[in-house]
Amino acid sequence: MKTPVTELFNIEYPVVSGGMVWCSGWRLAAAVSQAGGLGLIGAGSMHPETLTEHIAKARNALAGSGKPFGVNVPLFYPEIERVIDILTTEKVPIVFTSGGNPALYTSRLKDAGIMVAHVVASAKFARKAEAAGVDAVVAEGFEAGGHNGREEITTMALIPQVRQATRLPLLAAGGIATGRGMLAAMALGADGVQLGTRFALSQESSAHEAFKNRCTSLNEGDTMLCLKKLSPVRLIKNEFYQRVAEAEARGASADELREILGAKRSKQGIFEGDLAEGELEIGQIASLIREVEPVSKIMRDIVSEFRTALAEVRQWEI
Amino acid sequence: MKTPVTELFNIEYPVVSGGMVWCSGWRLAAAVSQAGGLGLIGAGSMHPETLTEHIAKARNALAGSGKPFGVNVPLFYPEIERVIDILTTEKVPIVFTSGGNPALYTSRLKDAGIMVAHVVASAKFARKAEAAGVDAVVAEGFEAGGHNGREEITTMALIPQVRQATRLPLLAAGGIATGRGMLAAMALGADGVQLGTRFALSQESSAHEAFKNRCTSLNEGDTMLCLKKLSPVRLIKNEFYQRVAEAEARGASADELREILGAKRSKQGIFEGDLAEGELEIGQIASLIREVEPVSKIMRDIVSEFRTALAEVRQWEI
Repeated sequence: MKTPVTELFNIEYPVVSGGMVWCSGWRLAAAVSQAGGLGLIGAGSMHPETLTEHIAKARNALAGSGKPFGVNVPLFYPEIERVIDILTTEKVPIVFTSGGNPALYTSRLKDAGIMVAHVVASAKFARKAEAAGVDAVVAEGFEAGGHNGREEITTMALIPQVRQATRLPLLAAGGIATGRGMLAAMALGADGVQLGTRFALSQESSAHEAFKNRCTSLNEGDTMLCLKKLSPVRLIKNEFYQRVAEAEARGASADELREILGAKRSKQGIFEGDLAEGELEIGQIASLIREVEPVSKIMRDIVSEFRTALAEVRQWEI
Repeated sequence: MKTPVTELFNIEYPVVSGGMVWCSGWRLAAAVSQAGGLGLIGAGSMHPETLTEHIAKARNALAGSGKPFGVNVPLFYPEIERVIDILTTEKVPIVFTSGGNPALYTSRLKDAGIMVAHVVASAKFARKAEAAGVDAVVAEGFEAGGHNGREEITTMALIPQVRQATRLPLLAAGGIATGRGMLAAMALGADGVQLGTRFALSQESSAHEAFKNRCTSLNEGDTMLCLKKLSPVRLIKNEFYQRVAEAEARGASADELREILGAKRSKQGIFEGDLAEGELEIGQIASLIREVEPVSKIMRDIVSEFRTALAEVRQWEI
C-alpha cells in the first residue's frame, strides 16, 4: 500500500503504534515494525538510561530487516535535554514529539538526520508544526486515551480541518482500532493512522496483564476525560477516577487535584496493575477490543478488515 | 444511491436533516426532501399548534412530489401526549424520536402507520430502540451540537459499536457536514447520515442571521459541552457560556446552574440572535463551514464531494 506515510517512513502499511506510557517498550515497537507498520518506543515513561537500552534492543531486534522504528517523546518530559541528546547521538531514525511546542527541538533533531512527526489536537497546531519544519503530523482526537487536547475536538471533526491546514503526511489518531476505522480516517483525508489502544492491548505491550484484561472487558462509556484543571487525561472510571470526579464536581482547585493525583499513578495502574488506585489510561475505542492478541495477528486483521471494507465501498453506487 | 436508509424512507440520498430547535421549520424540512434527502421538522421548539401548521405547510410544499418528510420529537417535550396525538392524527409519514425511552411511544406511532427512528448515543440504547420496535436508529456522537449523551462517546467510536449491536438501518450523526464525512461514517458501518450543523446554517434554516453568521466564522474549539449537571449541551463559548463555565469550575450545584440557565435561552440565541446571552447550540464541525447557502447547493456539494472521495478511495491499493 502506497500513501505519503508509507513513502515517508518506508513501511508496508500506514499504521503506527503510538508511544504509550508503560506499554510501548522495544518489544512492542519492534513487533509493529516487523509486521509492516512503524513501531514507536514511548520515552515518556522511561528513565534516559532505560530509553538508551530500549533503543539498542529495538535496533537489535530489527537488525538486517531494513525496517525502521521510532521514539515518541513528550516535550514536557523533565529531562528533555538528555533525551534529545540520546536521540541525536543514537541517530534514532524517526522521532514523534508530542505535548509541547514543536519549534523547540525539531531543527536539532532534523540536523541530526532524524525524521520528525509532531502530535497535534488542532489545525492551528498543525500549522505551527509545519512552520517548525516537521516531516509529518499526527492529529489526535478527544476519544484517544491518556493525555489529550483542551479543545476536545474529535477525530471526525479534526482530520478534515487539519487536512485543510497542511499538505504534510497526516496520521489520524483517536478512536481508531480496526481496518474500518482506518478506512474512515483515510476517507476524511488522513494518509495513515496511529493506533494507541489496540496495540496497548497486544501481547507485546509491556502493560500489566490485569490492566489489559480490564481494558478488554470495558463497556462503551467506561472511560472519561478528567483532570482538566491540570492536564486533561482519559481514564477508566475506577475508584481513583471516582475520587477525582467527586472532587471536580465540588469545584476542587488545581492544587487539591494535584494532591489527589499524587505521583506515579499511571505506572501504578498500567504497569503494576493496580486497577483501583492507578491511572488507567485507555481510549474510548477499547470497548471494541475483546482479546489480547499478538501484534502480528492484530496487523493482519487490520489490513484484512481494511481490504474487506474497501471492497464494499468500491461497490457503492451514487 | 441505494442503502437500507434510502430504501426505508424512499429517498434519493441517505442524508437526513436533524430536527434542530429554532432551525428546522417546514421550509428547511421541505427543501431537504425536495433536494433528495429526508427533511425533519423539529417539534422541540414548537407549540403544538405551530407544529400542526408546519406539518401542513411541509405537506403542501411537497404535494405531488412523492417525497416524504418527517418530524423530530424530543420525548421529554412537556406536552408530549398532545404532540403524539398530532403526529398520529396527521399521519406524518416518518417520526424521529430522541432524548427519552423509545418504549414509550414507538408502538402507538407504528400502529398509526408511521415509520419510527430513534436517536441514541450508545450501543446499549440502540439495542433498547430495536427492542421497542423502531425501524431505524440514529447514532449521534459527542461532537454534535445541542443536547448530547452523558457518556461522551464520539462518532468514530460509536458507529462501529452500534453497527455491532443492531442490523437496523443506521444513520450516523455528529461531526459530519460534508461528503467526505458521509463516506467516513458509511465506511464505519452507517447506512446514511443525519446532518444538523450544516443544515442549521443553510438559507432555509429559521435560525437568526446573526446566529448563522457567528457559526460560519467559528474556529475549531469554539464550542464546548457544558451543563453536565443538568443535561449536557454543546454551545458556542459566548458570554453566557463563560458564566456557566465559571460556575461549573467552582462546583456550582444543579440548582444554581438551573438559575443561571433560566428559560428560553436557546430561542434567545438561535432564533432571536442574542449572541452574548443566548444558548448558541451548534456542532464542532461548524468551523468547517464558511458560507450560508441554499439547501439545494449544500446537497449537490455533499453528493459531489462524496463521489469525488469515493473515486479516490476506489484507486487505493493494498
